[in-house]
Amino acid sequence: MDMQTSFRTRLIAEGILFPTGVDGLFGRNGTFEAVYDGLEHAITNFGRGSGAEVMRFPPAMAQTTFEKSGYMKNFPHFAGTVHCFCGDDRAHHALMGQMERGEDWMGKQEPADIVLTPAACYAVYPIVAKRGVLADAGHLVDVASYCFRHEPSLEPTRMQLFRMREYVRIGTPAQVLAFREEWMERGQAFATSLELPFEVDVANDPFFGRAGKLMADSQRMQNLKFELLIPVNDGAGPTACLSFNYHMSYFGDTWDMRTPDGNAAQTACVAFGMERLVLALLRHHGFDLDQWPAGVRETLALR
Amino acid sequence: MDMQTSFRTRLIAEGILFPTGVDGLFGRNGTFEAVYDGLEHAITNFGRGSGAEVMRFPPAMAQTTFEKSGYMKNFPHFAGTVHCFCGDDRAHHALMGQMERGEDWMGKQEPADIVLTPAACYAVYPIVAKRGVLADAGHLVDVASYCFRHEPSLEPTRMQLFRMREYVRIGTPAQVLAFREEWMERGQAFATSLELPFEVDVANDPFFGRAGKLMADSQRMQNLKFELLIPVNDGAGPTACLSFNYHMSYFGDTWDMRTPDGNAAQTACVAFGMERLVLALLRHHGFDLDQWPAGVRETLALR
Repeated sequence: MDMQTSFRTRLIAEGILFPTGVDGLFGRNGTFEAVYDGLEHAITNFGRGSGAEVMRFPPAMAQTTFEKSGYMKNFPHFAGTVHCFCGDDRAHHALMGQMERGEDWMGKQEPADIVLTPAACYAVYPIVAKRGVLADAGHLVDVASYCFRHEPSLEPTRMQLFRMREYVRIGTPAQVLAFREEWMERGQAFATSLELPFEVDVANDPFFGRAGKLMADSQRMQNLKFELLIPVNDGAGPTACLSFNYHMSYFGDTWDMRTPDGNAAQTACVAFGMERLVLALLRHHGFDLDQWPAGVRETLALR
Repeated sequence: MDMQTSFRTRLIAEGILFPTGVDGLFGRNGTFEAVYDGLEHAITNFGRGSGAEVMRFPPAMAQTTFEKSGYMKNFPHFAGTVHCFCGDDRAHHALMGQMERGEDWMGKQEPADIVLTPAACYAVYPIVAKRGVLADAGHLVDVASYCFRHEPSLEPTRMQLFRMREYVRIGTPAQVLAFREEWMERGQAFATSLELPFEVDVANDPFFGRAGKLMADSQRMQNLKFELLIPVNDGAGPTACLSFNYHMSYFGDTWDMRTPDGNAAQTACVAFGMERLVLALLRHHGFDLDQWPAGVRETLALR
């Protein structure tokens, strides 16, 4: 058993994670969720006073919005589409027979018009775009959503369904770059207040296929993505728990969001991987929350 | 415009719900979520001291668990299966062509091994069953999950993805029936403390097809399901916001959960439809939380 398996095994043995029979899909106990609630509180506190508009979304989005986002071009391997049964009594009878005989029945399902959300901020852009030209000050959104990525893994930090909290800035290049600078500082203060070891490094998204390699290289060369990495899984590299992303005008062009000068809006976001942060805290401070450092408990408002 | 449409229109106009382009799929603003958080707090308070084990689950479950639950026999029309792209560069190229030409690409997706969760308690039974014979006192679980039901609707109370909180009792017939009795009282005290008008009535689940009619009649005749109904949508009947369900030994037999006497365990649950309760509160107390009755604000710990 390698050390990485060992952390997962301990999480399961202590009853913090409930395995479901699918890699990367876990239930969570009250201890895990208490830390999660504390993180939500702390992230709100670190963003306080910024006047962010709160948006919360369900775990899926409209197929049309998903298609327009361009996600299938860059990350088709992660997407999860939702399908349903639209048949009558006769079709249902056939379906039950397939299930009883252990045949494939899911392949007979028909596409519904929704797709699991790949990243929280994807739901934000069409809503902001629909409001018309941005104000001079641009816009700031505090968004959260369950997200799905089809990447079954034994690492507990790589869940297929996980919660992402983000602050999303929309505006001029100067506005969004200033936001990203500010949050790269604030994110490090956040990790420090949680007494977690970390490093910040340039990064790339896991673009698909041969063309994806070029996309990833270009993203790195332009310093579009940084990650705050925390060692969580023993015997593996550190885990990206926050990311600081500069999309340039990708979403502004896609959704026709405009700044008052008539240019396509630019966007940037800071994203918090909530389950990863909970696991990082459990890894570094132990499974007994009462024993955590007083400062960490205060940041998380643990009582 | 009928009155029912009007409530939805007001929710959207006031920015409480964000439409996504799909009926029954909404984003929510900070006001909605503040009420949601308050309800979570109140439900925890009403269940306090019962020693319930906390379990929280992601919005999907393992296909094998879903299949064994028997859901597709009774409610195939509501289920949402998750499908993914498993191809190479060449298949991706073909996929992009389909999307560009506006052809069906979702139909080419392949089944993943997960299914959207139809009800929060479905994830609980296999975990409890795996622990072996129940203790003499049986077991009590406090569970929550996003749930999916494929039933696009204009009623804001009928969302396709919504959050369900439940207390689930597992034990002898006497234990689970006493639990249901207790929660039918407690549920009414809960609604009273929220100053919501309600009635409690016998009900049935929306079983599929011709055979489903018999199932529904039988469920009613045996008083297996009660609902706490609150008027929310104008021009429509009241909305089930809580349900009190007695499953007899259905899940005990399915998952081979046993009480110490060797019999199949029985189960019952009280389920809270969280979005419906938020909407009921907004409907009856208005959109300005500061103006809500002091007692309601206290129950919800609104500050």
